[in-house]
Amino acid sequence: MIGEHSSKQYDQELEAIRSKVLLMGGMVETQFDEALNCFRVGDAELADKVMADDHAVNNLEVQLDDACSHLIVRRQPAANDLRTVMATIKVITDLERIGDEATKIARTSKSLHKRGVTGFNHYDMIRTMAKATSDQLHDALDTFARLDGKQALQLIAADEVIDHEFRTIMRNMITFMMEDPRTISSALDTLWVAKAIERIGDHAKNIAEYVIYVVEGRDIRHSKLVGSEQVEG
Amino acid sequence: MIGEHSSKQYDQELEAIRSKVLLMGGMVETQFDEALNCFRVGDAELADKVMADDHAVNNLEVQLDDACSHLIVRRQPAANDLRTVMATIKVITDLERIGDEATKIARTSKSLHKRGVTGFNHYDMIRTMAKATSDQLHDALDTFARLDGKQALQLIAADEVIDHEFRTIMRNMITFMMEDPRTISSALDTLWVAKAIERIGDHAKNIAEYVIYVVEGRDIRHSKLVGSEQVEG
Repeated sequence: MIGEHSSKQYDQELEAIRSKVLLMGGMVETQFDEALNCFRVGDAELADKVMADDHAVNNLEVQLDDACSHLIVRRQPAANDLRTVMATIKVITDLERIGDEATKIARTSKSLHKRGVTGFNHYDMIRTMAKATSDQLHDALDTFARLDGKQALQLIAADEVIDHEFRTIMRNMITFMMEDPRTISSALDTLWVAKAIERIGDHAKNIAEYVIYVVEGRDIRHSKLVGSEQVEG
Repeated sequence: MIGEHSSKQYDQELEAIRSKVLLMGGMVETQFDEALNCFRVGDAELADKVMADDHAVNNLEVQLDDACSHLIVRRQPAANDLRTVMATIKVITDLERIGDEATKIARTSKSLHKRGVTGFNHYDMIRTMAKATSDQLHDALDTFARLDGKQALQLIAADEVIDHEFRTIMRNMITFMMEDPRTISSALDTLWVAKAIERIGDHAKNIAEYVIYVVEGRDIRHSKLVGSEQVEG
């Protein structure tokens, strides 16, 4: 069987997997953007759409795992190709979990707006963090598409900004809650949304780390270069 | 090269990977137990140990990913063996993230006790959830060790209990914060710890799902059987 395939066919299979990963990436980007929109304006229908879309994302994860397994069996990739397949298996797990976080944002937004927001402009609180994370996710997918190790390194450093924003939001929410206990419910919902956004930032960082693993053939996860683990609490 | 290896050597390699995964599992179980202990009594030294231990866990993740890659290249596993390797690659990611969550619990516990707990018995709040999750994690590792599909299915159903507990904790914390704003800081720290525990439960559930994937050769992630996604907020 090994002799049967042409190297062209093989490249096509790898490419098919890669573009399906990017399709999945585009889907979770849309989920995230729409979830943020739900949080901003409280569109319950859009929130339902975000949650429903998660099934399609989950299906893609299963399909892609299968495609990677089949490729390993039939093509027996080595060296760089195997690194790409290994990284892909990890990346799709992160993408699926970004979809989960977007779903949580949509769900929390729905209940927040149902009860009514009390005491502060909830969207203003997370605006900077949401923008930074949205950019981070977009760039991580772009980095994966182009296998750009240099950009990946920049992205890993940029995750600090998101974590810093998260701590700022937390301090602000505590202040609101202390000053007026009626804001507690809204503040907590805002915090859960901020937490979900922070997670999405972490997943985007993971994707960047896998890109470096493919490009440079070394594993920089947990190395000093990557910086300290995210801080919270 | 394919003809060179004996099937016995191959089994030994798979077994070596499997026991290293279980070693890693034992390490994160210890991290989790110690982190809960930090939360209960505020032992700052123990908290530092939990955080330091995370490096060893991270190292094991990198080593295991390497071992899986090498096995794929040298042994070209198919069918059930490949499913085992694929599942292992996913399981070690979950184990590593359980280590991260334990580290977060230790860090939050340290700052909670430094400021002092105000207004309620913080450990009582999470006791039930912590016990259920600790059992869940232990059973998930046991299920992976024995590749017991039936137990894995039970574990997946049990995750509902943890999610339910989380929502109860959230309601209790909101009540405390509403009644006495001085409890807000302590209540938030308790909520972050509960959130980290809930995540650990999710990761244990993921491990159970991968066991079923290996045992039954089918992917039950996202199927109706598994039940709905966790609810929060």
